[in-house]
Amino acid sequence: MGIGQREDLVHAFQRVRARSLEIAAPLSPEDCLAQSMPDASPIKWHLAHTTWFFETFILEPNEDGFAPFHPAFRVLFNSYYNGVGAKHPRPHRGLLSRPSLDEVRAYRADVDRRMAALLGGPKGIEVAALVELGLQHEQQHQELMLTDLKHLLAQNPLYPAYTPQAMASGTQPAAADWIAFEGGLAEIGYKGSGFCFDNELPRHRTYVAPFALASRLVTNGEYLAFIDAGGYRDPSLWLAEGWDRVCAGEITRPLYWVEGDDGRWQEFTLHGLQALDPARPVTHISLYEADAYARWRGARLPTEAEWEFAARRAALAGGALHPEAASGEGLQQMFGACWQWTASSYAPYPGYAPAPGAIGEYNGKFMVNQYVLRGSSCATPEGHARASYRNFFPSGARWQFTGIRLAR
Amino acid sequence: MGIGQREDLVHAFQRVRARSLEIAAPLSPEDCLAQSMPDASPIKWHLAHTTWFFETFILEPNEDGFAPFHPAFRVLFNSYYNGVGAKHPRPHRGLLSRPSLDEVRAYRADVDRRMAALLGGPKGIEVAALVELGLQHEQQHQELMLTDLKHLLAQNPLYPAYTPQAMASGTQPAAADWIAFEGGLAEIGYKGSGFCFDNELPRHRTYVAPFALASRLVTNGEYLAFIDAGGYRDPSLWLAEGWDRVCAGEITRPLYWVEGDDGRWQEFTLHGLQALDPARPVTHISLYEADAYARWRGARLPTEAEWEFAARRAALAGGALHPEAASGEGLQQMFGACWQWTASSYAPYPGYAPAPGAIGEYNGKFMVNQYVLRGSSCATPEGHARASYRNFFPSGARWQFTGIRLAR
Amino acid sequence: MGIGQREDLVHAFQRVRARSLEIAAPLSPEDCLAQSMPDASPIKWHLAHTTWFFETFILEPNEDGFAPFHPAFRVLFNSYYNGVGAKHPRPHRGLLSRPSLDEVRAYRADVDRRMAALLGGPKGIEVAALVELGLQHEQQHQELMLTDLKHLLAQNPLYPAYTPQAMASGTQPAAADWIAFEGGLAEIGYKGSGFCFDNELPRHRTYVAPFALASRLVTNGEYLAFIDAGGYRDPSLWLAEGWDRVCAGEITRPLYWVEGDDGRWQEFTLHGLQALDPARPVTHISLYEADAYARWRGARLPTEAEWEFAARRAALAGGALHPEAASGEGLQQMFGACWQWTASSYAPYPGYAPAPGAIGEYNGKFMVNQYVLRGSSCATPEGHARASYRNFFPSGARWQFTGIRLAR
Amino acid sequence: MGIGQREDLVHAFQRVRARSLEIAAPLSPEDCLAQSMPDASPIKWHLAHTTWFFETFILEPNEDGFAPFHPAFRVLFNSYYNGVGAKHPRPHRGLLSRPSLDEVRAYRADVDRRMAALLGGPKGIEVAALVELGLQHEQQHQELMLTDLKHLLAQNPLYPAYTPQAMASGTQPAAADWIAFEGGLAEIGYKGSGFCFDNELPRHRTYVAPFALASRLVTNGEYLAFIDAGGYRDPSLWLAEGWDRVCAGEITRPLYWVEGDDGRWQEFTLHGLQALDPARPVTHISLYEADAYARWRGARLPTEAEWEFAARRAALAGGALHPEAASGEGLQQMFGACWQWTASSYAPYPGYAPAPGAIGEYNGKFMVNQYVLRGSSCATPEGHARASYRNFFPSGARWQFTGIRLAR
Repeated sequence: MGIGQREDLVHAFQRVRARSLEIAAPLSPEDCLAQSMPDASPIKWHLAHTTWFFETFILEPNEDGFAPFHPAFRVLFNSYYNGVGAKHPRPHRGLLSRPSLDEVRAYRADVDRRMAALLGGPKGIEVAALVELGLQHEQQHQELMLTDLKHLLAQNPLYPAYTPQAMASGTQPAAADWIAFEGGLAEIGYKGSGFCFDNELPRHRTYVAPFALASRLVTNGEYLAFIDAGGYRDPSLWLAEGWDRVCAGEITRPLYWVEGDDGRWQEFTLHGLQALDPARPVTHISLYEADAYARWRGARLPTEAEWEFAARRAALAGGALHPEAASGEGLQQMFGACWQWTASSYAPYPGYAPAPGAIGEYNGKFMVNQYVLRGSSCATPEGHARASYRNFFPSGARWQFTGIRLAR
Repeated sequence: MGIGQREDLVHAFQRVRARSLEIAAPLSPEDCLAQSMPDASPIKWHLAHTTWFFETFILEPNEDGFAPFHPAFRVLFNSYYNGVGAKHPRPHRGLLSRPSLDEVRAYRADVDRRMAALLGGPKGIEVAALVELGLQHEQQHQELMLTDLKHLLAQNPLYPAYTPQAMASGTQPAAADWIAFEGGLAEIGYKGSGFCFDNELPRHRTYVAPFALASRLVTNGEYLAFIDAGGYRDPSLWLAEGWDRVCAGEITRPLYWVEGDDGRWQEFTLHGLQALDPARPVTHISLYEADAYARWRGARLPTEAEWEFAARRAALAGGALHPEAASGEGLQQMFGACWQWTASSYAPYPGYAPAPGAIGEYNGKFMVNQYVLRGSSCATPEGHARASYRNFFPSGARWQFTGIRLAR
Repeated sequence: MGIGQREDLVHAFQRVRARSLEIAAPLSPEDCLAQSMPDASPIKWHLAHTTWFFETFILEPNEDGFAPFHPAFRVLFNSYYNGVGAKHPRPHRGLLSRPSLDEVRAYRADVDRRMAALLGGPKGIEVAALVELGLQHEQQHQELMLTDLKHLLAQNPLYPAYTPQAMASGTQPAAADWIAFEGGLAEIGYKGSGFCFDNELPRHRTYVAPFALASRLVTNGEYLAFIDAGGYRDPSLWLAEGWDRVCAGEITRPLYWVEGDDGRWQEFTLHGLQALDPARPVTHISLYEADAYARWRGARLPTEAEWEFAARRAALAGGALHPEAASGEGLQQMFGACWQWTASSYAPYPGYAPAPGAIGEYNGKFMVNQYVLRGSSCATPEGHARASYRNFFPSGARWQFTGIRLAR
Repeated sequence: MGIGQREDLVHAFQRVRARSLEIAAPLSPEDCLAQSMPDASPIKWHLAHTTWFFETFILEPNEDGFAPFHPAFRVLFNSYYNGVGAKHPRPHRGLLSRPSLDEVRAYRADVDRRMAALLGGPKGIEVAALVELGLQHEQQHQELMLTDLKHLLAQNPLYPAYTPQAMASGTQPAAADWIAFEGGLAEIGYKGSGFCFDNELPRHRTYVAPFALASRLVTNGEYLAFIDAGGYRDPSLWLAEGWDRVCAGEITRPLYWVEGDDGRWQEFTLHGLQALDPARPVTHISLYEADAYARWRGARLPTEAEWEFAARRAALAGGALHPEAASGEGLQQMFGACWQWTASSYAPYPGYAPAPGAIGEYNGKFMVNQYVLRGSSCATPEGHARASYRNFFPSGARWQFTGIRLAR
């Protein structure tokens, strides 16, 4: 790492760390405490946990005379690293009224100060890779801050907006085209000299049969036609597990759709409750719904290999609080609108090896009963998306900005 | 209601309403939001709900040109009154980051202002009885604010104190005496011209066989002897339901007892974690534990009729944040230390009739599968205790300041 | 015990033991194995457990050279006696395909043979009281065999009859009268030289205010009027716990009522599915329903003291497989139709003391969160009913032959 | 279908149908009724459901003047075919004491008679493919009959044997070799003119990187070393979901291992409780355990493509009630000992299309959150195994004869 790279890293560190606080800025301490379900975490917890990551994995082994900011934080803000020791139980994160939000901000400031000192000193070079990992980790949590917050606000009958704003209706996009790909023996996985997560490696050969992808994501208007046609009442369209959830009343429409007293659909967004825009992509749907919709259309979901094969020349985009309608030509909305469910379960690539030690718990131990989502969403931080990126969630998860890309 | 009475009521209104804010004063907005279990409510919710009571039952039918402070609050802060309409689900009260604590304070101020106008006007006389009920209701919630808060803070591994303070050890009281009562055909239930709840009426005759009560509550030291003697391991001491909970690991010691690394017992209090004081009364125990302890001692729990029979001449006391050790002679600690489990299920007195309308949902509909507790606790507001008072909780409830009075 | 008494006991033993086998006679081994819910037990288990009672509590301590019929049965067929040791988990009783029904019959025959020898020998006198308890215990299980079986058969879409038979409609009884009682200082509890359970003792004084009881039980026709009037949709009629169950869809009509495709009500009985007879008493209802119905009628449920006060001169009756319609004059159906919910929780009488040892687990440890039912039902064995008898079940239990006697 | 083929089919029909009754022959009606968990079904239900399959899918559309054996059986014995209509709830199959086992045998005889008539008549040719499917379906249930029965008997503290027999210890096999495969662009999926399930199609190209398989399955002795080395206490070896189950106490050793009072391991088998044989393959383990064991050995589980690639020349074997020890050279135990967990989630092959109508619910709708197992087990019926066969179960399932084949 030359001086230039070191400065880049310091700037990246400052920029990413500042962004987390920006996300929290419009929120009250109460907004930052509440936890709406075990899968979601409070904003305050995200702010503390991302700091804990730097303190635990970088400062502790590298800082001279290291002393923790607060000895209890090692347990309180450990997410799932068994190698680090005990963890505070995840469903109870919303009960931690102490430390206060102000104390967590002080924790961030303290760690940032010590990290700046470390990065400027002789060990700055050694820790660069881990710092990069910590920043990517924090960016992942930035997206979760927004989706967890959205889930919390949606539970409130007042439907409060994160940032109040009237949303303009998008222009209705043209019918989706099928873009054909020849496939063949291909390589997938990360290639390059930048950062990637361990689950994107090793790059390896795979055979991809000829396939086609829809040129854009499925819209709200198209999904509404599926609902109106009885899509949620026809078991022949559904995976058995999904149908069980439909019958149990757990899945009846996209997560944040609200039927008004006048029968018109509205959608809860981070800008508050809005009239449902038929032009924008449908979002906050489970794998079950994505799969049922595809079956109704006589199509299917892509595999992750197909998606990555197709994405190599797609344009990066994004950076809003709700997915925009498609516009333009060719393969659109691969990035920046909604994460796209694939038919691929989350599994190790041939030859995959996690890092040694607690940091190796990052990805590998979750490789069962989860499905890969590809692309990125409107809430994904800038610079965090790439064609080889593998996001993953259980098949029933709906609180992320998930959407549908058809394949055949 | 003459002028003097009206002024008394206005003063009482101001004093009780101010007290709720005093309880919340040392707390942050975060402390006031979190909900540690479905049975407990956030402080902010208590502040709003007690205000909702005045707005809904007094202002709405009596104020000229009534308009609600916020139309959604009718649902958000309704606890259980079906007659008023829909209710926000109880287990989700901790998710209401909005309205903020400041908005709830504004709600209180607004209702207080309007109530003052009403009380000073021509309808002041008509509503006096309802205002009295609303104040008594608010006092009940003041005790719950402290017990719900204690439960919340106890979930936090930092064991934060509500008001930090070192607690002095009490002087070890003398062995309890048995105070004998002749019993006979007696009357129980409220008698007098002051306020009482409908469940204390009608005063009625009952036959009480001769009995004796212990002169004071069971102490921590005495209860520790029960634990050390294997009380939690001997099924012959327990009601079957209680033993099931012991076997399931749900009941292993009083709720807030913590065993230190050195094997010494500590107790979590509103003043923080403290060394267990053997002189103070044992508290935060279920009916199952009270009953098992009594059986171990060859005694039993009193009935509510026995308790009331004995209490007619007992001294009122109280007003701390943790029960004090007994001192003095004769029948002690009937009031002001711990609520005392009785063997009586909560049932209507002969001829009981609830008030008409939604206000009638106050007591009667809970008269099944709950047990009566008598006396009052250190957290009971001044002026809220009397010999005929009937508190009630399910047999497994432990987060109130409950204790054990033996009978035989 | 003279020779005559000994012979009586031997005959009673033979008669009661034979009756259990008679109840099982029309059933297949499959019918005798299945368990439809944790609260119910298989017929085979009842046959074995009642035998285990004699083997464990009488033969084991009294038989020379005692050896168990099968060493594993001590655990397999222990119901809830912690003093005896381990128990097979109650919800898994229906998994015991071995021992077979034939083996259990052999177990019964072996114990009966050994009991006969014991009763005819020198220890016959000593064990007489325990034998009497064992027979009363077996009679309780005989009623449970019928109610547990009914619950099982009701789960089967074929609605199989235990004993197929067309049920004649009863004659519509006259409107119920109110029979007034003066009350006063009275004694309740068992008095006499026959058998009673420990929970009926000691006989003791209690004060009973003047009251009135309905002359007969509430009929199906009367209960139907409650349903048709929206009784299950009006929260003001219900205890809060009951209303929660109504809202959860758990309670919507009496347990075995079935609405036919033509909208007519049918009732599943041990004689199969039958047209609902408006003349017969409503049965298989919870305390919540009994209480709500009474409130709808402007009445209430009796206390157990009132019931016993009134029952002292009531006629014993019973012995069918479904409750009969009322006929005659005065206080009817106190016995032999339906167990009658009271407003009294199941609690020890003043001075109550259970027997020492495991046999003392019979009654006392269940004295919490259960309600007393008085009288007897059509399924109660002959000779098992008396005015002081205290049956008890949780407030939500509906699979017994429970009914409603109004009071005011 | 010529005459010869028709006779073959008739013979196959008779042989397979007879085999189901043979499996049930040693069992009592009680053994055939009980259901030990929702995932398992009673033997009687298997006997009826396999018959229902022929009646519903073959007789109903093809038999002249079709009338069902019993109209209620359409619902009672439908497993999961939404296209056929309502289903009796799966967890309640063990409550169907009626119809009796004898009636189900009569149902089988009746359908067999009508099937024989149909097969011998003019429609025999048309239905041949469906009959073949029905027989394969019945063979799948034959394996389930044995595994469901084993699970039931294992719940019984008497540990009854299905067929009592002392099991000889196997000869300790030599250390496993690594058999290397070059891989490359290969085809997998069924190829041939015999029967296969729709999920084995279409045969398609896939790229397989070079790999090696262990020459035999992991033995009990080897697995015991993993336990003794603390395998169940080291989170670094486990998938996160698996570790959660370990921590919850749900997974602590292979399902049917029992630790004797002397500390020696025993294993419950269909021949009763036996000393654990270190030479036989470990069986009844979850995917989590298979995966953790592989990680401990520095290996991994094979993908289904690797397994099929290697299996093309493997010998078929099997037909016992417990897996045998390995013997011989080269790649052993691919078939006939234990189903082998793979790392592949159960997903459609490229171009997969289920059959139209209710019969199409056979496979496709289960393609989520399940993992593929390859090979066959000791309980797989003769003639039911092939290299392309795809068995599938959730990752936590342990009641099948599952085992571990290592890969690297």
